[in-house]
Amino acid sequence: MEIYHTPTRTIRPAPDACAVDIIDQTTLPHEQRSVRLVTVEDAAHAILSMQVRGAPLIGATAAFGVALALSCDPGDASFSHAVAMLGATRPTAVNLHWALNRMQEIVAPLPPVARSEAAWQEARLIAEEDAAQCRRIGEFGLIQLRRLAEKRGRLRIMTHCNAGWLATVDYGTALAPIYAAHDSGIDVQVWVSETRPRNQGLLTAWELKQHGVPHTLIADNAAGFLLARGEVDAVIVGADRIAANGDVANKVGTYLKALAAREAGVPFYVAAPRSTIDFSCASGDGIPIEERDGDEVRLIKGVDAQGQASEIRLIPEDEAVCNPAFDITPARLVTAIVTERGACAASHDGLSELFPEMAHVRPG
Amino acid sequence: MEIYHTPTRTIRPAPDACAVDIIDQTTLPHEQRSVRLVTVEDAAHAILSMQVRGAPLIGATAAFGVALALSCDPGDASFSHAVAMLGATRPTAVNLHWALNRMQEIVAPLPPVARSEAAWQEARLIAEEDAAQCRRIGEFGLIQLRRLAEKRGRLRIMTHCNAGWLATVDYGTALAPIYAAHDSGIDVQVWVSETRPRNQGLLTAWELKQHGVPHTLIADNAAGFLLARGEVDAVIVGADRIAANGDVANKVGTYLKALAAREAGVPFYVAAPRSTIDFSCASGDGIPIEERDGDEVRLIKGVDAQGQASEIRLIPEDEAVCNPAFDITPARLVTAIVTERGACAASHDGLSELFPEMAHVRPG
Repeated sequence: MEIYHTPTRTIRPAPDACAVDIIDQTTLPHEQRSVRLVTVEDAAHAILSMQVRGAPLIGATAAFGVALALSCDPGDASFSHAVAMLGATRPTAVNLHWALNRMQEIVAPLPPVARSEAAWQEARLIAEEDAAQCRRIGEFGLIQLRRLAEKRGRLRIMTHCNAGWLATVDYGTALAPIYAAHDSGIDVQVWVSETRPRNQGLLTAWELKQHGVPHTLIADNAAGFLLARGEVDAVIVGADRIAANGDVANKVGTYLKALAAREAGVPFYVAAPRSTIDFSCASGDGIPIEERDGDEVRLIKGVDAQGQASEIRLIPEDEAVCNPAFDITPARLVTAIVTERGACAASHDGLSELFPEMAHVRPG
Repeated sequence: MEIYHTPTRTIRPAPDACAVDIIDQTTLPHEQRSVRLVTVEDAAHAILSMQVRGAPLIGATAAFGVALALSCDPGDASFSHAVAMLGATRPTAVNLHWALNRMQEIVAPLPPVARSEAAWQEARLIAEEDAAQCRRIGEFGLIQLRRLAEKRGRLRIMTHCNAGWLATVDYGTALAPIYAAHDSGIDVQVWVSETRPRNQGLLTAWELKQHGVPHTLIADNAAGFLLARGEVDAVIVGADRIAANGDVANKVGTYLKALAAREAGVPFYVAAPRSTIDFSCASGDGIPIEERDGDEVRLIKGVDAQGQASEIRLIPEDEAVCNPAFDITPARLVTAIVTERGACAASHDGLSELFPEMAHVRPG
């Protein structure tokens, strides 16, 4: 059953060329344009500059990055260099390392002459699996949302950042259940927080608009007010890494929403595929939190009065800025984790039951 | 004892003219300029457009606005019109109504011929009292901070919005204890949240820089991360209205910081003068929350590459936006309220003990 469509895959091999096409997410929502990645350096740059972002899509892009490197030179040195370069791009999303490990396991044992084709095949498989997993997340999330909708007659859902199809290969994680609920006829309205400093909430609003899902943008600061006022029936977010105990690393600001949701008695769901779960990480304390350039806070991109891309300085250059990109939401604040195998408690037991084949990993 | 200096009063009668000079806060921190208010309409516009903002300064501006009106026409109709126009500008900060009530009580009983002079005198008195009260808030707040500093050896304080001298007539509320601590030799570092959508955190950074207080700007979303990581010793904010039970209305986003402070075991102080306390309001539920124009979120002001004032569109015009300007922090999350008469518990008992002459008001 095809429950909903998205306009396109966010990453796909270019026809008749050793290249990969992506949607450049740095120009959205004001301009939609594709970018062609030809080298592993292009792939690393796309991840670093956030032309692609979202933990699952970062993983898929890294896999295709390895394929690009091996198309050019399938030797061991080229392989190691590609994995090192891609692995160093962003520290928090574990899907990146998951995808690189998988590429190494499958492709490294092969003779160099067979590696390029195998790498493309595995990268395609990773991408297809991600899309299928996200579709399943949508279906399992819908089960949770339907229960709430039956009680309330409608659903007002808050999300943070962008965990839609733009953050994955297709369908999305946090937004997949929302699309599924909307398509199944539930009266859904979405609170979209702008998600400073990179404003990925605008990507969420752009996605929702294309799909016809009613939504309202808010400043991140307004989330507590709306939750306290009873204007929210559920919060759903994605994840960049889930530790073995159920602690969740996600876009900075997630933790504040989780606190306000608990205070308001509103369920707080985390939606993520298995590539986001890191059983080798005992708790959130062990998850590295990326600190990004302060200019992400100081400068703001938008469009001028003529609709042309434009950037202004919000904060003087000489002001010190601290810019952590993620925060940790403790498992105790998470109502359930929704995966492609169903929903579970945010705990080692809950995660182990759904993913027994991964749970044997001892936290390092 | 003059414990610290601010560059100038934020509002002052113009020499030799029936006019009032203010600092235009909409062009800070990029440009500092004065604006002269000549009519009551000018005063109402200054409050509405946030050329002046901050609950105590809004109160003082309204008082001078009445004086401007009565200079022009001291009759009853002019008086009522001025009070109605100024009273309708902003709903949340109670200092506005407090100042207007006080002007009416003092000036209305006088014959029209005596009103103008009396109004100027009373407005000046309100302004002078505000400055003196804020200075005392600094002294009493310092007592709280000194205790913390003795335990920690240094102080890392988080604040929200701007509750500095720019938000008052002088000294500030939340920033007064910070200035006092810095001037008394305590090693103070301040986390300044940018405070979307109007970015009043930039005013705080600008103030702190002028005073030489080390500080770091953060996106509002980063507050929870820093509190959870143990990077904050205290949170201090101002208030727009404090209900009889100690619930606090303050700039939207305050509540999220209060939740994260409690979770981290970090004290959360509210600093405010008596004009902010509204014994007629039983709890936060009774405080009206202003919803402002969505364009405050959609458009952002800053400077272009040449340093010229510039505005860009962040969010497409057709996206719905919800923009509440304040939120309510329940009394249970507030460690203490610091006033010009000392610190007290955020409760009816605490507030009544400090302000017995006001506590007889029955919540309406």
